[in-house]
Amino acid sequence: MQRVSLKQLAAHLDVSISTVSKALRDSHEIGIDTKKRVLEAVEKLGYRASPYAAHLRHQKSRTIAVVVPELNNNFFIQAISGVEEYCRSQNYHALVYVTNESFELEKAILNQLYNGRVDGVILSLSAPTKSHEHISNLIDGGIPVVFFDRVCHEIETVKVVTNDFASAFRATEHLVENGCKDIAFLSLSANLSIDNKRKQGYLEALLKHGLPVRENRIIDCAVSEKNFMKKITQLLSAGNRPDGIFASVEKLALASYRVCHELKLSIPGNIKIVCFSNLHTADLLSPSLTTISQPAFDIGKQAATLLLKYLDKKNAVMSNEHIVIPSELVVRASTARK
Amino acid sequence: MQRVSLKQLAAHLDVSISTVSKALRDSHEIGIDTKKRVLEAVEKLGYRASPYAAHLRHQKSRTIAVVVPELNNNFFIQAISGVEEYCRSQNYHALVYVTNESFELEKAILNQLYNGRVDGVILSLSAPTKSHEHISNLIDGGIPVVFFDRVCHEIETVKVVTNDFASAFRATEHLVENGCKDIAFLSLSANLSIDNKRKQGYLEALLKHGLPVRENRIIDCAVSEKNFMKKITQLLSAGNRPDGIFASVEKLALASYRVCHELKLSIPGNIKIVCFSNLHTADLLSPSLTTISQPAFDIGKQAATLLLKYLDKKNAVMSNEHIVIPSELVVRASTARK
Repeated sequence: MQRVSLKQLAAHLDVSISTVSKALRDSHEIGIDTKKRVLEAVEKLGYRASPYAAHLRHQKSRTIAVVVPELNNNFFIQAISGVEEYCRSQNYHALVYVTNESFELEKAILNQLYNGRVDGVILSLSAPTKSHEHISNLIDGGIPVVFFDRVCHEIETVKVVTNDFASAFRATEHLVENGCKDIAFLSLSANLSIDNKRKQGYLEALLKHGLPVRENRIIDCAVSEKNFMKKITQLLSAGNRPDGIFASVEKLALASYRVCHELKLSIPGNIKIVCFSNLHTADLLSPSLTTISQPAFDIGKQAATLLLKYLDKKNAVMSNEHIVIPSELVVRASTARK
Repeated sequence: MQRVSLKQLAAHLDVSISTVSKALRDSHEIGIDTKKRVLEAVEKLGYRASPYAAHLRHQKSRTIAVVVPELNNNFFIQAISGVEEYCRSQNYHALVYVTNESFELEKAILNQLYNGRVDGVILSLSAPTKSHEHISNLIDGGIPVVFFDRVCHEIETVKVVTNDFASAFRATEHLVENGCKDIAFLSLSANLSIDNKRKQGYLEALLKHGLPVRENRIIDCAVSEKNFMKKITQLLSAGNRPDGIFASVEKLALASYRVCHELKLSIPGNIKIVCFSNLHTADLLSPSLTTISQPAFDIGKQAATLLLKYLDKKNAVMSNEHIVIPSELVVRASTARK
């Protein structure tokens, strides 16, 4: 069945396009008989209204964009699942874009959303992003942006995050309680809101337990795998290696596992490891990995809920809310006492 | 900066909307001076053309849908990455939909794509899908569908898959070579094209090596986790348990790991395990997992390439191509000889 246009439908019925269009909108200007004839023809010829024509009438595409730094990460996958499921339930559609941790790509992607392809954006920043003009331009252009996870404090809008500070504090304290005296913090990028909050939680826990704070134990792993494998190998091959690692993100913990296997260091014997992670194989790793498990699905769902709530209200004002959904420390073998 | 409409732009310039529109399309009907004035106003007022208006002119949304059965699976994540990256490079946009292995949801999602929201669809079937009218309707309605991984043989279109039969044959043979004499095949669903191809490869390898084929060694694990944990537990607690498992998909191998840990069975001592999987932690599992690693990113990219090639050609006919990109057996500890 080929789709027919409004024009073909009108020609078939021998009435004007405007009559067909009004009949389809159930306008009072059109008589019941004509409406009936139009509906029969619609049924017979298989006419369907274009959603983009509807968009032009209502100035709405019922489409949003989810922009994430990477897909190879269970946190973002689960967050996207939450967005997708909620959008579907509300008859919205979700475009997915990946910035590959590139500021330039993030800018290019957001710039092309500017022209009305989407009604709103759910964004988690790429690691190198420092300036935010591309985001405020989008908002000023009438496209609301909701942040999740990696947020930008300078922009007033809804932000959905986990309790990064408190969870990092708890994870570090857990390492101390299980005997660690020299804990390194692996950071993905000093630009990131989450990395800063997590570092603060780590530092606070060291202070509370009277452990020294050493600059050289805070490792900026940069973003590329080649970079962070090198930095972690340097850290763990040195004579005075740490006895605990708190990794800000999953891939830095997995890299630490690989380096330990390479250097024949025992986890947790020589070194204990904990990280923020939503890895579904954490319980099956050798050894099983202690994680701070984030409510990623709920974070995505909540971000979508608040964005759609705003979009569906006329003349709504985007609030400057900071929604915090707490994470959970799941203790496994990688941090066990010797 | 608020977006201005064509109307506001025309009012600002004191010309007709049609003049502005023609100037923007560089029409020969409009003089150079007017074009210059229009472009200056566009710059100054920040007018941007709506992509949906362009869609109505060209009957194109430059948007495609990727419909997958689940996101909690590295194969689909990497395939989506391949689609997303290629689409971006071609200035296309990718909507992502998840059917959660539900036939009803798959039908509902495809039905709402019917009205022109997308130019084409890249689809991997949900496990329970047996009838295909919802797909042929979509194609008949002018929306081309390209399959990847889980395909429907009855529908003539492009299909991008891996060498399921040959890879399954190779994996089963690998188990036999390492000493297995009684190998079970774990299937997700007998409906699925991939499960059937993989089962055939498994059976062929048993025949080649003179091993008996037993009906009760082919386990239809159904789709829900509760179901397959129960079936695998039954299989491995029995007195005559198998000495090898070939799992059709990743989650059935991970479930087998969990059951073995629960029952204190040694992998690979008591039982060897191999599966199709793109798990990025396969090397870190306890023990590391032997996998048939699929070129998932390339499969997604190839599916997008062929769909977009078709979409960008006028009057193109969708070919009935079967593209096969081979997988690789990566041998690790879970299948080691005792």
